[in-house]
Amino acid sequence: MASGRLLVEILSIGDELLIGQTVNTNAAWMGRLLEAQGWRVNRCVAVSDEETAIAEALRDAESRAELVLLTGGLGPTRDDITKHVLCRHFGTSLVRHPDIEARIVAWFERRGREVLQVNRDQALLPEACTPLDNPLGTASGMWFERPGGVTVSMPGVPYEMEYIMEHGVVPAMRDRLSGEGRLPQRAHRSMLTMGTGESQLANRLGSLEDELEGRGVKLAYLPSPGSVRIRLTAEGEAVGALDAAHAEVMERLAEWVVSPVGRVVEDELAAVWKAHGWTLAVAESCTGGALGAALVAAPGASGYFLGGVQSYANTVKAEVLGVDAVLLADHGAVSEPVARAMAEGVRDRLGADFGLSITGIAGPDGGSEAKPVGTVYMACAGPEGTVCVLHRFGRDRTRNLGMSVRAACRLALQVGQSTGEPAKPAGGVADSL
Amino acid sequence: MASGRLLVEILSIGDELLIGQTVNTNAAWMGRLLEAQGWRVNRCVAVSDEETAIAEALRDAESRAELVLLTGGLGPTRDDITKHVLCRHFGTSLVRHPDIEARIVAWFERRGREVLQVNRDQALLPEACTPLDNPLGTASGMWFERPGGVTVSMPGVPYEMEYIMEHGVVPAMRDRLSGEGRLPQRAHRSMLTMGTGESQLANRLGSLEDELEGRGVKLAYLPSPGSVRIRLTAEGEAVGALDAAHAEVMERLAEWVVSPVGRVVEDELAAVWKAHGWTLAVAESCTGGALGAALVAAPGASGYFLGGVQSYANTVKAEVLGVDAVLLADHGAVSEPVARAMAEGVRDRLGADFGLSITGIAGPDGGSEAKPVGTVYMACAGPEGTVCVLHRFGRDRTRNLGMSVRAACRLALQVGQSTGEPAKPAGGVADSL
Repeated sequence: MASGRLLVEILSIGDELLIGQTVNTNAAWMGRLLEAQGWRVNRCVAVSDEETAIAEALRDAESRAELVLLTGGLGPTRDDITKHVLCRHFGTSLVRHPDIEARIVAWFERRGREVLQVNRDQALLPEACTPLDNPLGTASGMWFERPGGVTVSMPGVPYEMEYIMEHGVVPAMRDRLSGEGRLPQRAHRSMLTMGTGESQLANRLGSLEDELEGRGVKLAYLPSPGSVRIRLTAEGEAVGALDAAHAEVMERLAEWVVSPVGRVVEDELAAVWKAHGWTLAVAESCTGGALGAALVAAPGASGYFLGGVQSYANTVKAEVLGVDAVLLADHGAVSEPVARAMAEGVRDRLGADFGLSITGIAGPDGGSEAKPVGTVYMACAGPEGTVCVLHRFGRDRTRNLGMSVRAACRLALQVGQSTGEPAKPAGGVADSL
Repeated sequence: MASGRLLVEILSIGDELLIGQTVNTNAAWMGRLLEAQGWRVNRCVAVSDEETAIAEALRDAESRAELVLLTGGLGPTRDDITKHVLCRHFGTSLVRHPDIEARIVAWFERRGREVLQVNRDQALLPEACTPLDNPLGTASGMWFERPGGVTVSMPGVPYEMEYIMEHGVVPAMRDRLSGEGRLPQRAHRSMLTMGTGESQLANRLGSLEDELEGRGVKLAYLPSPGSVRIRLTAEGEAVGALDAAHAEVMERLAEWVVSPVGRVVEDELAAVWKAHGWTLAVAESCTGGALGAALVAAPGASGYFLGGVQSYANTVKAEVLGVDAVLLADHGAVSEPVARAMAEGVRDRLGADFGLSITGIAGPDGGSEAKPVGTVYMACAGPEGTVCVLHRFGRDRTRNLGMSVRAACRLALQVGQSTGEPAKPAGGVADSL
C-alpha cells in the first residue's frame, strides 16, 4: 500500500436506499468510526441491487481507495446478489464453510426456529475471501485482498455491520498498518451553539478565522435545525494549536455556546444535571414524549431524570398535572400561563428539582392568526422560580417537534446556569434560529 | 434527452457526511420524492468539500444521468465552495441578482437580524444558471442546462432543499417531460410484517415468488429491526397484476402481517384506533416517552392519543400510576405484575379505552442473570382485560428502545383486533425478531 493516511470508500448496496425507504445510517456510523481511527473517508456511494451498477461502482472505488467497504445485499433471499457479483469480480467461486454452517444452525436452534436451506447456504462464501465472524446474524463478513488494497463486504443490518467493523475490519486493518507509521495525527475540537446562524457566528469571529487558518487550524460550520456545531480541525504539528484556538473561538461566541465540547444539547443537560445532583421532570403536550425520549436515549438517565407526564389532551393537563381549568379556558392550552402551570405542576407532582414543560402547535393544522402553527411555549420551573419563553418555529411538524425538544433543553441549561445567581433569562420571544 | 425513464443521480457535498457528523437524510427524502414521480435514482454519492472531489463526482454523474441533483456547500461561510466549483465546471462567473439580494435583506429584517455582506453575497449566482426560489433561506437553488440534461444545485439544509425540490425542480422537470411520453408507469405495493425473519417469509411464499416473477412482479424483502417490509414492484403492463399478487402474498403471510398497506406499525395503530373511535394512554418506563413521541410524530394523533405517564423512576410508577409498592418490591420494576399494573393504572388514571405500558432493561447496564439487558415486559389493558408479553431483545440500548416501541404497538394492534372477540394473544415469551 502507498504511504500516507488510509483512504477509504464506502459502497452501500440496495434499492431501498435509492428510493428512500431506508436512510443510510450505516455510512454515517462507519464514517465516525473510521474518522476516529484517523483514516479518511473519501467518498460514499449508494447503488441499486443490480450487477452492473454494483460492479462498476466497485471498480471505481477500488481504483481510488485502499480500503473499500461494501454493505448490503447479503441476505438469504434472491434479491440479494452481492456475493455473486463479488465472485465474478474477483474471479472466484462459492465454497461451503462447514464451521460457519454449524454456527448458523446453532443460531437458529437457540431461537427455536427452523433452519432452511437458504439459511444454510449463507455458509457458501467466495473462495478468495477470508470470512469475518458475525455472531449477531447469519451473513459473514468477507475480506478480499486485491492489488492496491483490501475490499470488505458486510451485511447491511446495522448492528451486524457494526460488530464486523469493530471486531473484524478495524483490528485487522490496524494490524496491517502497524509499524509502518501510516497514521499521521489528525484531531478535532467541537462546540455547539444555539440562538443564531452561521453567518452571524462567522461575522463575530471576524479575522480570527484567517489567523487560525494561518496556524493550520481549519474551521467548519455545521448547521442543524436550531443549532450550529463549530468544528476545528488540524493535522500533524498543527494539532498542538487546537486547544488555544478552541478557547479563542469560545470566548468570541460565548453568548451562543451551549456545549463547549460539542455535545448535543440534551447530553449537555444530562452532564450538567448529574454534576449538580439535580433531578428533572418533564410535562409534554405537543411533543408527546419526545423530550423524555431524547433524555433517556443516552445511558445513565436515571441519574437525574425522574420521568414526566405526556399531557397531550387537556384533561390530562388538568387532572394529572393540576393545571387550573380556568387557565386552560381563558388562555388556551398553548399559552404562557399553561406552560408555567405544567412545569410547576410536574415539578411538584414528581418532587423534582426542576420541571420542564412544552406546549405548542406542531402543525400542520390547529393554527390561528394569533397562534400560528409553530407557536410553542416552554417553561422551566426551578428552586428560584419559573422562566417561560415563546418560540415561533416554522410550518413543518417534524422540525417543530425536534426544535421544541432542543430549545427546551437549552432553556433548562440557562435556568440551571442562573440557579444560585440572579435569574438571567428574562422570558419573552426567543430567537428561534 | 434520451427516451425512457428519467435517470437521476444525487451528489451530496460535505465533510460532515463523510465523517458521520450528519446522516444523509436528504438523499433518502429525495429518493422518495423522485420515486413517486416515476423517475429512477441511479446512484447517490457523498463527497467532501474539496474542489477536485466535487468536480470529479459531478463529471461522473453527468456522464450517466440526465438529472444531477447537488446538495450542500452553499452556505455563506468560506468552507462552502460549491458555487465556485460550479462556475469553473460550467465556464461561467458570478453575477449579482438585485431582486434576490432584496429578498435576502427582507428575510433578515423580518427576523430582526443584521444583514452582513456575506449574506448579501448569496445573491451572487453563476451567470449560466436559472435561479430557483428559496423563501425559507438565503441560498437560492441553481438550474443549469447542459448537453445531455440538467444539473441542479441546492442548499443542504433539509427543509430548504425540500422546498426547492417540490416547488422548483419537480414542476420544471415535469413540464420538460410533458408530452414526450417519457414516464412509463411503475408501481409498488407494500406490506409490513413483524414476528419472523425474511428467510421464513420467503420459505412460506415458496414457489409463489417464481410465479409472481413470471407475471412481471418483483418481490423485495426490506428488513428493519423488528419488522420486514415486503415490496412488490411492477412496470408497464405488469402493473395490472399487482393487486392480485399482493392479495396472494398477504394470504400466505397473514399471521405476520401487521399492516397490509406497508404502514409502519405506529401509523397502523393510529389508523385502527381512529377507525374504531378508541382512545389510548401510555405508561413508559425504559422508553421515557419514545412510544408517545412515535405516536404523535404523525399529524392527527389527538384523534385517539390522550397522553401518558413517563414513569421512569419507581416513585412515579407508585405515586402517579398507582402501582402497588408491594408489587415493585416483590417482583421488581421490570416484571409482568408491574407491566400490567402500569397499563391498567394509566388506562384508569387517564380514562382511556386502552392503556399500553413498557418496562424493561434497555442497557447497557442494569441487567442480571434472571433479567439480562434487553428484557422488556409490555402490557395492553383494554375493555376485555390485560395482555402482557415478555420480549428478550439484545444488548444495544438504542435498538432495544426502538424495538420496544414497535413491539408495544404490535401488541396493542393484536389486543385491538381481538376486542369484541375471544382474546387471542395468550401472553408468554414473544418472538423477538
